[in-house]
Amino acid sequence: MTTNTTTYILTGSSQTKLGVLDLIISSLYRNDCYAYEMHTFDDADTDRFFFRVEFNYRGNGEFSEADLRSQLADRAEAFEVKWELRDLAIPAKVVILVSKYDHCLQDLLHRYSTGALNIEIPAIISNHPDLKKQADWYNIPYYHLPVTAETKAEQEAQMWQIIQETGADLVVLARYMQVLSEDMCKKLHGRAINIHHSLLPGFKGAKPYHQAYDKGVKLVGATAHYVSEDLDEGPIITQGVEPVDHTYTPERLVAKGRDTERVTLAKAIKLHVEDRCFLNGNKTVVFPGH
Amino acid sequence: MTTNTTTYILTGSSQTKLGVLDLIISSLYRNDCYAYEMHTFDDADTDRFFFRVEFNYRGNGEFSEADLRSQLADRAEAFEVKWELRDLAIPAKVVILVSKYDHCLQDLLHRYSTGALNIEIPAIISNHPDLKKQADWYNIPYYHLPVTAETKAEQEAQMWQIIQETGADLVVLARYMQVLSEDMCKKLHGRAINIHHSLLPGFKGAKPYHQAYDKGVKLVGATAHYVSEDLDEGPIITQGVEPVDHTYTPERLVAKGRDTERVTLAKAIKLHVEDRCFLNGNKTVVFPGH
Amino acid sequence: MTTNTTTYILTGSSQTKLGVLDLIISSLYRNDCYAYEMHTFDDADTDRFFFRVEFNYRGNGEFSEADLRSQLADRAEAFEVKWELRDLAIPAKVVILVSKYDHCLQDLLHRYSTGALNIEIPAIISNHPDLKKQADWYNIPYYHLPVTAETKAEQEAQMWQIIQETGADLVVLARYMQVLSEDMCKKLHGRAINIHHSLLPGFKGAKPYHQAYDKGVKLVGATAHYVSEDLDEGPIITQGVEPVDHTYTPERLVAKGRDTERVTLAKAIKLHVEDRCFLNGNKTVVFPGH
Amino acid sequence: MTTNTTTYILTGSSQTKLGVLDLIISSLYRNDCYAYEMHTFDDADTDRFFFRVEFNYRGNGEFSEADLRSQLADRAEAFEVKWELRDLAIPAKVVILVSKYDHCLQDLLHRYSTGALNIEIPAIISNHPDLKKQADWYNIPYYHLPVTAETKAEQEAQMWQIIQETGADLVVLARYMQVLSEDMCKKLHGRAINIHHSLLPGFKGAKPYHQAYDKGVKLVGATAHYVSEDLDEGPIITQGVEPVDHTYTPERLVAKGRDTERVTLAKAIKLHVEDRCFLNGNKTVVFPGH
Repeated sequence: MTTNTTTYILTGSSQTKLGVLDLIISSLYRNDCYAYEMHTFDDADTDRFFFRVEFNYRGNGEFSEADLRSQLADRAEAFEVKWELRDLAIPAKVVILVSKYDHCLQDLLHRYSTGALNIEIPAIISNHPDLKKQADWYNIPYYHLPVTAETKAEQEAQMWQIIQETGADLVVLARYMQVLSEDMCKKLHGRAINIHHSLLPGFKGAKPYHQAYDKGVKLVGATAHYVSEDLDEGPIITQGVEPVDHTYTPERLVAKGRDTERVTLAKAIKLHVEDRCFLNGNKTVVFPGH
Repeated sequence: MTTNTTTYILTGSSQTKLGVLDLIISSLYRNDCYAYEMHTFDDADTDRFFFRVEFNYRGNGEFSEADLRSQLADRAEAFEVKWELRDLAIPAKVVILVSKYDHCLQDLLHRYSTGALNIEIPAIISNHPDLKKQADWYNIPYYHLPVTAETKAEQEAQMWQIIQETGADLVVLARYMQVLSEDMCKKLHGRAINIHHSLLPGFKGAKPYHQAYDKGVKLVGATAHYVSEDLDEGPIITQGVEPVDHTYTPERLVAKGRDTERVTLAKAIKLHVEDRCFLNGNKTVVFPGH
Repeated sequence: MTTNTTTYILTGSSQTKLGVLDLIISSLYRNDCYAYEMHTFDDADTDRFFFRVEFNYRGNGEFSEADLRSQLADRAEAFEVKWELRDLAIPAKVVILVSKYDHCLQDLLHRYSTGALNIEIPAIISNHPDLKKQADWYNIPYYHLPVTAETKAEQEAQMWQIIQETGADLVVLARYMQVLSEDMCKKLHGRAINIHHSLLPGFKGAKPYHQAYDKGVKLVGATAHYVSEDLDEGPIITQGVEPVDHTYTPERLVAKGRDTERVTLAKAIKLHVEDRCFLNGNKTVVFPGH
Repeated sequence: MTTNTTTYILTGSSQTKLGVLDLIISSLYRNDCYAYEMHTFDDADTDRFFFRVEFNYRGNGEFSEADLRSQLADRAEAFEVKWELRDLAIPAKVVILVSKYDHCLQDLLHRYSTGALNIEIPAIISNHPDLKKQADWYNIPYYHLPVTAETKAEQEAQMWQIIQETGADLVVLARYMQVLSEDMCKKLHGRAINIHHSLLPGFKGAKPYHQAYDKGVKLVGATAHYVSEDLDEGPIITQGVEPVDHTYTPERLVAKGRDTERVTLAKAIKLHVEDRCFLNGNKTVVFPGH
């Protein structure tokens, strides 16, 4: 029964308040919508409430998304609930930024091509020409936008234009080796994901595997996080980790880390495009996914 | 706000049906109960719906648990919802069965004593006298019930009497080296947890670490599962795993496995006593815990 | 100093016997070879001794590999030591067998292209034409050898010819969905690696993720093993594992498992081509790698 | 054969130099000692060589440890090899420092009592009286040495006296909540292990779980390291890690972390007392253990 009908996701957040959950659930019920998977969380520190409902229509007539939206809008306003309703089948539009490393890009493109990630990739943007052939193979437009200290503002303006024109829902920094400007970070607030190759907040900044080598750590990892104005300080979505030992040179750590980076980044993207991630101040709420 | 009030857990299951979720949530709302954490799951294979709600009272008057129960009972009947309402602060009563190995018992007693596991232990039952002093240290009654093939029925009868008299919510087989009779398994359906020292269904039966050694596996693990009439086939709650290599003798596998066994068993008990586990045919639904 | 000189690997095994280690080490020393990394293991069950030495020449003259070989040969014979000496820089020749799934193939090709795996791939063989374009992209010869019950012997003969003509050191079954004949398994003894999508010996045979789903396990995994005549019983090289829960359908398990499969297979290949794996009856000895 | 004879461990380090390995191995061979497990490592950065050999006597006469020692001493001097020879069966003497938390202590005492850790515990020292009963249960002398800023020097003097009088091989800070003086750290150089409840170098200092909570990390861990004068900067022996999510309060992180702390500390102690750990500047070399 589930598989033959359109799957919707209703997500949102509000101040901690009696009645929010009831208005969500009763609105769905009145519209013959069956919520087969639901998660909520209330952060006692910030007094914010988060919810995610996966549902489909199980009435005898025809489902009116417009009616549901309208009812939700009416009732949610009083409670100041911010909510979004989405057809899960519609792929998110993801613009990918890269430089020269291709391991994360290759991985994302493969997941995209097999449907493991339900996304469209309207553009790949790079400050280098190197990875154009990977984009070509998948018939994805590749924009080579070189950047220097002088041209940074201009380059970001071009980037922003592409992001807007493609209607990107999400921007992914798949080992993009440039720091975005504060302005760009603000514009992309909550919809840009970066992969950092350390267990943040350990080893911020450049060459984290070399830092890890110098410290002689026995675990290395990767952190997928939302981009924020504070470099390497954005809200963490997920982290991966691998055991290492004294025989790992920096080069071996780099090689080892690639697996963790790509799996961790792909996981974060999947969680985001399935609407399982919520910003909660400098942290995230992430409901269980696959 | 949360921390000053009594915390309740409402759990249950029903056939897949429109309206079940609404009746739960609206009943809570009408009684000024704030559901700050909620998880639901619908199994498309078995058409069963499962829910767990953590809530507390946030009205201005006084909370009447009786009123809520009565309203839930009225409305749930029509939907054939099986539900339970519980004050989370009340510790579950757990009877522990052991033989001679004490690593799981020691671990559980320590967690019990520090409050990491919110349980009471009204009785420890063993077919050997060896672990009495551990029980004594924590002032827990220890029942030594020796067992032979001839006296098994009688021994289980004594065991059952203790379980009933202590009002046990849960029976834990913490490396209890006896197979319970079919009758006993039925009586304890859904409220007896066993720890098996393999990644079931691999290496069922006796000496799983020796089996693992003979196969040369590179991972060993432990499985906490509900006890069922089919030995080592009960619904799995959680599993733990550890990497091993060619240098592990059976004895080293046994030693290594102890850590996984005790952590895995403790985790399963915590999930159970916090009402996060549901039987679903020969499988389980386990909502996220800590 | 290490990085500027040729790196050799000396591996071997013998019966448990005093003097074997001494002859290895003293032969290296006499030839001014510095053994900077060494591992040995003695299996008390089978009375076999295994060793792996990584070394390079640090004398003042010129290194004669021939002299070392000749001395080793002379002395090793008396002790019935089976040994191999190899220049680590020379890539192993790996023939890859595939069917239609491309996630393992893509992963191996990427690692090959970046040098993460120090291998050559002289041929990709498949019973389907589907993955030819991946081979083309990397300029690797692709042999489409369809197979039916009737043509199996013939197809394997063609396969064997390719394996021989390319001088393959290793054959990798990267989700090759055909069972090799007993004869082929024998020919490839110790130099064919398969990836099975379960934690063997759990869930042998077909559709292991569906079996895992039916059992409701909370961990799934993958096993890389040497191919043997007994299907899914070959010596295990390495295993990977991932936590799952009740929300995983068989399809989601399949998707989740792909990451574990490809990482586990790649790890096994790396261990093999770096001469870290030894057959030891129906088990393996695997010295630490990266 | 192995199990009936005394097992020795020969460990050591030297400058990178041709001939060191040969002198070790040939000395063993001349004395009819069979090295059944051996690991070596050479750090190309520091030009230091490390080795660990496990062996037993397999000659026809009687083994003279004195002869072996004398030969090793003669030959090792020329190569400036620092070495130690030890009968593996002789338990290491471990003095444990604690404050009020007992989870690590309980765990160590249990492993000690079952023989999982081959150690003796001649003394438990604490700045609080709370854990005396745990010591009593295992018949271990408990020294309550209260400490204030004023009495610190005096208290450490008492502590040092106990460490010396008991002939302690190792001092373990099992959640000892005091910072040792620089002088004490120097005295205990290379033979004091601390457990820090974070993935160092992340979250140094006090209340690491609260720091982790504030950062919203998705993994927490523990680090066992040698004590050094720089607080939380000592050479890392091993690290453990656990996934967490947004539902973890600081209290839940603390509770969760206990399992990782005790397993990680116990693992480090086992590695140390089996002579598998070597100091290498501000890092460690740790050969594989169980």
